[in-house]
Amino acid sequence: MTKQAQAATSAAENAQDHVNSNRLQDAIAALAAFGGRDDGGVARETLTAIDLEARRHLITSARALGCEVEIDDCANLFFRRPGTTDLPPVLTGSHADTQPVGGKLDGAYGVLAGLEVIAALNDAGIQTQRAIEVVAWTNEEGSRFGPGAMGSSAFVDPSRLAAYRAVKDGDNITFGAAVDTALQAAADVKHRSLRQPIASCVELHIEQGPVLERANAALGVVTGIQSVRWYRVDCVGMAAHAGTTPMDERADAMKAAVALAQQLYTYAAAEAAHNLRLTLGRWQVGPNSVNTIPGNVEFTIDVRCVDAAVLERFEQFLTQTIAAYQWRGKIGFECFFSRPPTIFPQDMLNLIEKACVRAGTLAKRGEPQHLTSGAFHDAMYLAEYCPTAMIFVPSKGGISHNAAEETAPEDLYLGVQALAYTVVELANQ
Amino acid sequence: MTKQAQAATSAAENAQDHVNSNRLQDAIAALAAFGGRDDGGVARETLTAIDLEARRHLITSARALGCEVEIDDCANLFFRRPGTTDLPPVLTGSHADTQPVGGKLDGAYGVLAGLEVIAALNDAGIQTQRAIEVVAWTNEEGSRFGPGAMGSSAFVDPSRLAAYRAVKDGDNITFGAAVDTALQAAADVKHRSLRQPIASCVELHIEQGPVLERANAALGVVTGIQSVRWYRVDCVGMAAHAGTTPMDERADAMKAAVALAQQLYTYAAAEAAHNLRLTLGRWQVGPNSVNTIPGNVEFTIDVRCVDAAVLERFEQFLTQTIAAYQWRGKIGFECFFSRPPTIFPQDMLNLIEKACVRAGTLAKRGEPQHLTSGAFHDAMYLAEYCPTAMIFVPSKGGISHNAAEETAPEDLYLGVQALAYTVVELANQ
Repeated sequence: MTKQAQAATSAAENAQDHVNSNRLQDAIAALAAFGGRDDGGVARETLTAIDLEARRHLITSARALGCEVEIDDCANLFFRRPGTTDLPPVLTGSHADTQPVGGKLDGAYGVLAGLEVIAALNDAGIQTQRAIEVVAWTNEEGSRFGPGAMGSSAFVDPSRLAAYRAVKDGDNITFGAAVDTALQAAADVKHRSLRQPIASCVELHIEQGPVLERANAALGVVTGIQSVRWYRVDCVGMAAHAGTTPMDERADAMKAAVALAQQLYTYAAAEAAHNLRLTLGRWQVGPNSVNTIPGNVEFTIDVRCVDAAVLERFEQFLTQTIAAYQWRGKIGFECFFSRPPTIFPQDMLNLIEKACVRAGTLAKRGEPQHLTSGAFHDAMYLAEYCPTAMIFVPSKGGISHNAAEETAPEDLYLGVQALAYTVVELANQ
Repeated sequence: MTKQAQAATSAAENAQDHVNSNRLQDAIAALAAFGGRDDGGVARETLTAIDLEARRHLITSARALGCEVEIDDCANLFFRRPGTTDLPPVLTGSHADTQPVGGKLDGAYGVLAGLEVIAALNDAGIQTQRAIEVVAWTNEEGSRFGPGAMGSSAFVDPSRLAAYRAVKDGDNITFGAAVDTALQAAADVKHRSLRQPIASCVELHIEQGPVLERANAALGVVTGIQSVRWYRVDCVGMAAHAGTTPMDERADAMKAAVALAQQLYTYAAAEAAHNLRLTLGRWQVGPNSVNTIPGNVEFTIDVRCVDAAVLERFEQFLTQTIAAYQWRGKIGFECFFSRPPTIFPQDMLNLIEKACVRAGTLAKRGEPQHLTSGAFHDAMYLAEYCPTAMIFVPSKGGISHNAAEETAPEDLYLGVQALAYTVVELANQ
């Protein structure tokens, strides 16, 4: 037993002990049916007809738990369990939308975990000083309407909403029209404005990477979210016939792109000690024909690190390497997305550590692992607004955004236990 | 004057002297109107409606010159100027189809040059012993139906036609159906079978490369066509989240592809003295997303050289390099096209050299340049069947398969002069 375990069981411990793994699994299966695929995946992009059905299912489920339901201007859904005071609530939850083909856990787990915490509180007969709100943020994935995390980012800065509303999907439907349809479908739900007061926020999520599994840890204390920069590199040479053009007459855009890419990979290997992550993910080659020298190659760079200074050094290297490359064509680049690191507050991490240790001890599993998130989450935006932190559970094989996404039921259970403890502690502060 | 110039003007010289540059330019402009674009390019893919109109224009033009017109099972068109004997004819010509966006000269020039030779013979009142046939081969380009050079390859080996007829275009139309439509549209044209006897064949074409322009030569004696091999390289790793996957856990298919490509470019540079040409032209990246580690990268290799042994060495290097690359994924490769070099017969080259020198002398331009063709041509297949050779004229900037394709009118004129001399000499052998 740790020093947190006291003679008398605390409200947080009591809530933790009332989390029900079977009920959680049933809830996951029930939500996964909305957009569920034969391969076990879920296709439920934001604000589609099937997502609206899933939202109605969540509203009904939350009301059955006694929650008040509210919806805001970005169609974010809030399920509120009142507290004994009017102090700002503690927020938990995540998102219920998926990638075009995603798994049943990414996002959905965090929302259902929040509802399971409320069910556990109900079972235990626990009252908290602050209200507890479970949120289902709109459009975290960003696959139908870009960028992602529109709901949480508009929540903390409502001025963003106007631009988001103008974004169109592949069928030329605007995000604004899709939100309005969702609001009409929730006409029985009380409306509220964005940027409501929040005391603190905890998001529980699958890791979507292999770190916890590799460490054989059931729970992760997320210390922050990596800084990221996205670049577009554009190599412009001259398309020409592969057979007729002598090598010394060529302006081969692919040869230039490969030379640059090789230097970037070598640089990243040298920065491995600083945990630089480099991905050259999207490539467009023109004219992309077997027997034509590529005239245009555009590729993207995704670099991430918890240390923004490492990314700053990377950008200097990129600039110098491009300037130094001698050929008959041109290379340009631009940074089209940049996000500084998110550092979660130490007192939030301490609390989550306690919550994880107690859950982990009960399950006879090892210490929680401290790690940073390489992926973005809604918590990234909430961290701009109120004390925020995250809890991770392992992803089998590190696989996510994939029908094969999976986490052991015991780990999912431990995650909700850690969440219940944390939320109740925060709700009584 | 060369030793070929005799006191009495020969029939070949007489024909050469009757080539008319203005008439040639008018013919080029008239054919370019079929599929002509505002940017000067031509969009006339094989056996499309506009190509059938262009074929009708050629039939009408040839009949106006007194030619007999025939069409074969692959819709190749033959415009025949009879000789004084029944000996097998001399063949010239090229193709009238274009890339989706091509220029007005690639292929078309060779067909119209043949008709200009016939017009010059008519003007000069010259009879030849052998008939002269001008051919317009079907589907040289291979852009609508692959592979290219279907017409000429089926001519020399009719057993190929059945497989060609089953090939479908992007609209699911078979080559066979397109050929049948062309045959119906030419119902007034006499039908003949493939693989007719041919004494010899000369194809006049634009270079589609920069060699002649760089040498300031108006004419090129083509000594052969490069050997070529096409490979498909398939790198299979594991797609994963760019943010959440540590570098040492990755099976990054693009990192593997870039490392391999860099080694191939370095190898090609070391083989520059042997004129190895290397193009990595077509790339398919999956899932091709900014923030996803590429799980699959497939790219093509086009290698060419007149020396087949150089390509053999390249394949050994490719095999060894792939085998030596250590990572978590797999790399496979296959050769999906291979063509040995074509070497044109020396006596044909000697004759073309004479023809070019006289044309060049008349125009006060330099010696003809000997060069190999890096591109495929119908002559590659004819060379399997009868003595064959090619004449090149320069391409401005080496540009081809492009609306900007251009050759100076004087060079086009000199090319037809060289062709007229060559064809008449061959037709009197």
